[in-house]
Amino acid sequence: MFETGQFAVLWKKMAERLGLAIDFVPGDWRRGVDPAIVESKLREDRRRAIRAVAVVHNETSTGVTSRIPLIRQAIDRADHDALLLVDTISSLGSIEYRHAAWGVDVTVSCSQKGFMLPPGLGFNAVSDKAIAAAKEGGMPRSYWDWEEMLKNNANGFFPYTPSTNLLYGLRESLAMLREEGLPNVFARHARHAEATRQAVRAWGLEILCAMPEEHSNVLTAVMMPGGRGADAFRATVLSRFDMSLGAGLGKLADKVFRIGHLGDFNDLTLMGTLAGVEMGLATAGVVHTQGGTQKAMQYLAGARPPATEHARDSKGHDRAALPPVLAEAR
Amino acid sequence: MFETGQFAVLWKKMAERLGLAIDFVPGDWRRGVDPAIVESKLREDRRRAIRAVAVVHNETSTGVTSRIPLIRQAIDRADHDALLLVDTISSLGSIEYRHAAWGVDVTVSCSQKGFMLPPGLGFNAVSDKAIAAAKEGGMPRSYWDWEEMLKNNANGFFPYTPSTNLLYGLRESLAMLREEGLPNVFARHARHAEATRQAVRAWGLEILCAMPEEHSNVLTAVMMPGGRGADAFRATVLSRFDMSLGAGLGKLADKVFRIGHLGDFNDLTLMGTLAGVEMGLATAGVVHTQGGTQKAMQYLAGARPPATEHARDSKGHDRAALPPVLAEAR
Amino acid sequence: MFETGQFAVLWKKMAERLGLAIDFVPGDWRRGVDPAIVESKLREDRRRAIRAVAVVHNETSTGVTSRIPLIRQAIDRADHDALLLVDTISSLGSIEYRHAAWGVDVTVSCSQKGFMLPPGLGFNAVSDKAIAAAKEGGMPRSYWDWEEMLKNNANGFFPYTPSTNLLYGLRESLAMLREEGLPNVFARHARHAEATRQAVRAWGLEILCAMPEEHSNVLTAVMMPGGRGADAFRATVLSRFDMSLGAGLGKLADKVFRIGHLGDFNDLTLMGTLAGVEMGLATAGVVHTQGGTQKAMQYLAGARPPATEHARDSKGHDRAALPPVLAEAR
Amino acid sequence: MFETGQFAVLWKKMAERLGLAIDFVPGDWRRGVDPAIVESKLREDRRRAIRAVAVVHNETSTGVTSRIPLIRQAIDRADHDALLLVDTISSLGSIEYRHAAWGVDVTVSCSQKGFMLPPGLGFNAVSDKAIAAAKEGGMPRSYWDWEEMLKNNANGFFPYTPSTNLLYGLRESLAMLREEGLPNVFARHARHAEATRQAVRAWGLEILCAMPEEHSNVLTAVMMPGGRGADAFRATVLSRFDMSLGAGLGKLADKVFRIGHLGDFNDLTLMGTLAGVEMGLATAGVVHTQGGTQKAMQYLAGARPPATEHARDSKGHDRAALPPVLAEAR
Repeated sequence: MFETGQFAVLWKKMAERLGLAIDFVPGDWRRGVDPAIVESKLREDRRRAIRAVAVVHNETSTGVTSRIPLIRQAIDRADHDALLLVDTISSLGSIEYRHAAWGVDVTVSCSQKGFMLPPGLGFNAVSDKAIAAAKEGGMPRSYWDWEEMLKNNANGFFPYTPSTNLLYGLRESLAMLREEGLPNVFARHARHAEATRQAVRAWGLEILCAMPEEHSNVLTAVMMPGGRGADAFRATVLSRFDMSLGAGLGKLADKVFRIGHLGDFNDLTLMGTLAGVEMGLATAGVVHTQGGTQKAMQYLAGARPPATEHARDSKGHDRAALPPVLAEAR
Repeated sequence: MFETGQFAVLWKKMAERLGLAIDFVPGDWRRGVDPAIVESKLREDRRRAIRAVAVVHNETSTGVTSRIPLIRQAIDRADHDALLLVDTISSLGSIEYRHAAWGVDVTVSCSQKGFMLPPGLGFNAVSDKAIAAAKEGGMPRSYWDWEEMLKNNANGFFPYTPSTNLLYGLRESLAMLREEGLPNVFARHARHAEATRQAVRAWGLEILCAMPEEHSNVLTAVMMPGGRGADAFRATVLSRFDMSLGAGLGKLADKVFRIGHLGDFNDLTLMGTLAGVEMGLATAGVVHTQGGTQKAMQYLAGARPPATEHARDSKGHDRAALPPVLAEAR
Repeated sequence: MFETGQFAVLWKKMAERLGLAIDFVPGDWRRGVDPAIVESKLREDRRRAIRAVAVVHNETSTGVTSRIPLIRQAIDRADHDALLLVDTISSLGSIEYRHAAWGVDVTVSCSQKGFMLPPGLGFNAVSDKAIAAAKEGGMPRSYWDWEEMLKNNANGFFPYTPSTNLLYGLRESLAMLREEGLPNVFARHARHAEATRQAVRAWGLEILCAMPEEHSNVLTAVMMPGGRGADAFRATVLSRFDMSLGAGLGKLADKVFRIGHLGDFNDLTLMGTLAGVEMGLATAGVVHTQGGTQKAMQYLAGARPPATEHARDSKGHDRAALPPVLAEAR
Repeated sequence: MFETGQFAVLWKKMAERLGLAIDFVPGDWRRGVDPAIVESKLREDRRRAIRAVAVVHNETSTGVTSRIPLIRQAIDRADHDALLLVDTISSLGSIEYRHAAWGVDVTVSCSQKGFMLPPGLGFNAVSDKAIAAAKEGGMPRSYWDWEEMLKNNANGFFPYTPSTNLLYGLRESLAMLREEGLPNVFARHARHAEATRQAVRAWGLEILCAMPEEHSNVLTAVMMPGGRGADAFRATVLSRFDMSLGAGLGKLADKVFRIGHLGDFNDLTLMGTLAGVEMGLATAGVVHTQGGTQKAMQYLAGARPPATEHARDSKGHDRAALPPVLAEAR
């Protein structure tokens, strides 16, 4: 496992509680998993003691996206049979991700990020290799066992009482994603992330993520300048502008704030968000250069959005099907 | 009646259809009702042929707010017994308005603006003088007659099938307005209107309303520069940024666009709105100076908002009653 | 106009207020419009003073349905050019009705009955003859004039601020009615009405409607036996069983109660309704014979329902599209 | 553990998967846990090998309610230190249950039954003794560990992303239960259960629960007569009457159907339910005696309901606060 941020730390903590032996590669929380370290660790593992490589695809605590295809290649180059486990909690449905094509063995995800639903559903995609591993080994488990779910997949039943309302919601989420088209969804998140980064740099602030090729498209963590507390700044933004910025977690507590830009989000919600940050910086007296919001506007106005971005209105209805009158009332 | 804009014109048209004789004071759609003209018209009316002075408080088509207290004073100075009728469709609940204190005889309003509800409810506040006038005269009428409503006011019944769902909604609207406090609600709208005007001026565009003391706090109409069509610009903003700007109506068709800033609206929704306009200007190639959004941000960040503005969250729940966890989830 | 019940009386009152001269054929509120009287009235009208025959299709206050085709035939037999105006407030979408095929000139309806929506929309269907009559005559009017609506029908606009949310609702209502199929919808209402009448008769109570061929399929008015007050009985049912029965209106006040069985209604909601009445009769000590609910059950269990009745579940989703699990959770 | 039905079987299966050694007392699925057996089992356990007595309070698969206070007394009489674990999934909030007063160590419950919410929340109430046991022993665990939750209880945080929408729902559920008053809620369920049993007996069918003092107040399982399949009967009821009866589970598969009567449920929803069963019996040609629904009506009309039962309307609003008009529209 790799210390890429708070959710990697929590995953490791969970594994330790379950009694697993973890080789936790330390990190500075500013970059993703280094494929070269994956490869060397696995090459050194002559006795095949390593059973799995566990990677958080998008670290929600840091805004860093690890490059899963490169990690897969690293494992393959080392010719190691370890399983590849990937946490896609905050990436699935927002950033490109391919369970099968990228050779992932276990993908873990959820309803409350890219699927735009309340929390409550967890998803697993599992390879045949992972299923075989689960059958032959593992610790005592019941609810977390895949067997019951897999058995019922054939007939569509749930082995337990399902979150019915969230399943209805998921049906709609998937329809929305399909209608916009996944490539358009990913391009939209990329545009908003780039606009956000241009704003942060224009303010003269530093983005936590140190690796340009690992910038997250779903959130941007910003380092608080001048040794000031990020939480006091966040409190100012919440009370003055009714906007809740993400807190710094774990060892980043009070050191960063996080700007989310994922899910049901468009250019103008991003501009409201960035304006809230810039006005918050002014209100809280944080040293910065004005103009980040302006910079983001220039970028967004200049960069052509994906063709189908606005074909559905915010109520999920096809625009073309509505009479024009609805936009013209007094 | 006074030609202050499209809704004044429609009101006059309605009156004509009903067979009333109208003295329609012409106007350029850039200013409100001139109290001096009210006074002189009434002074000239020796035979008391004028039965009512009809004023649109806030002209939704122009962003001009007529000054009702001055008009009342003008009527009083002329010592005329004409009724004062006021259309508050787009002002009630957003801009200060006082039916009784300002000596208005008939106030007309609705559910879909300051009350933040779907369209469907109409309101009348009526003075004793208006009720007496309705009793002794008027043309044949049934649904529009106040008598049945007034009779049932005592017991809370409706003489007709009521819009039950909107009445439930109204109960909540009134609770929300009371919770924020009307003076705070009015101050909030004033702040957003001032920020909008600063943005428009920074873009080098002209505000339709020619009288500083008559600027509307609920919407700002902007003149399209350089002889370009406003509707093509509005279409660009709608398709690129999913935002529907108000159209120019009547003789302003294609000449202005209107920015709404009323109802359930806060600093960041305003910033999203202004950014949408500024990016639209750039995208559509309209000649303007960048920086209006920036200017509005400076104003909003500097001007202290009303103390209680954000005490309720966007779900209508009292913030203090919620455990802090809800803002901190991954 | 014909005194078939309270809504006919209110329509006449409205017409009188508007200054129209009304020949109001008296009635006992237990039967619909008699086509023979229509014919004789029109034959007597040598000078063609009668401009319109106005009929309430389904009298919501009495549970009597007038037979529009017979009335049309009566007008035609008299060779009279009077317009045929029909109020279909509580029948459209629940009982068979054909504006064009039945030669109706003006049909009036609304959103809150067969369309299963909140109150707030009114509908008019108008014949060319009615449009021509409106153009050449009529009293001063504005909102009620068809001209503005007809002009805008071509482009889909509304001349006034539309009840947007109800229009979205209407789109769904129409989809639901089309999915079930209008013949099935009508047959469903007929079944429920027949079951209700069998229950009422089994209780030994009298149905207000005196003409078997005029029984309403959307509601059944029941005469309160033994000189007891119907309103006290209704209050008992409301407080004990949380069910609001319709009140007797106008001259039926306190003399009848009304059982509604229209709209989004199925066999079991009907059974709950009838059980509420039967238990209410027992609780309130009203003389009756037990067994009406039982009788209705026998009828419903025996009579085959329309084939497609239950193809959509109560959430409007196609049953076949749902995995079976949703009905099987613990 | 005790074989009281399917959920006891599943609980035992879960325990076995987790590697626990289970003494599973066999049962016929028609009665609850026998306190005498609890006592004798524990008395025989000289070496204190038994660490916990696990009881399903209300067996959702059978409609049998075990008597927790008698089981507590049995444990106490045996002077055994085993923990008492109780599954209250389908009883909490509907049938009287007292975690502390009855000396329960671990109570397990959920959102989707008596709390009238969608599935998604699980609750644990734990005694100090249980917390101490969890600290000193147990198998490897992470999510299921109480430690993180207990630590955060002090400040109101959740250690994981909470089901925010269900927490809002729970706040309203608790308000509803408090408003009606728990004793009234329990009495309401008891009335509906008694009415259901009278109906079943009048049909000449047999209630699965063999012990009168263990009849469940939240559901009634009915044995399918004459060797017929219960599932075909359930399918008939679903397709003809749009009502989904509970299936027989585990060894009761196809042998019983289950009538639920819990949660947001009143006399008339019960009558619709029972009528659906009786009409289904007739439609499916199941041998039975007519009149069960009638019998239930006699019981409900005769038995005085709790005083405050209907103080809140179905929208959760206090009745007294609404103008009377809302029930009187056309």
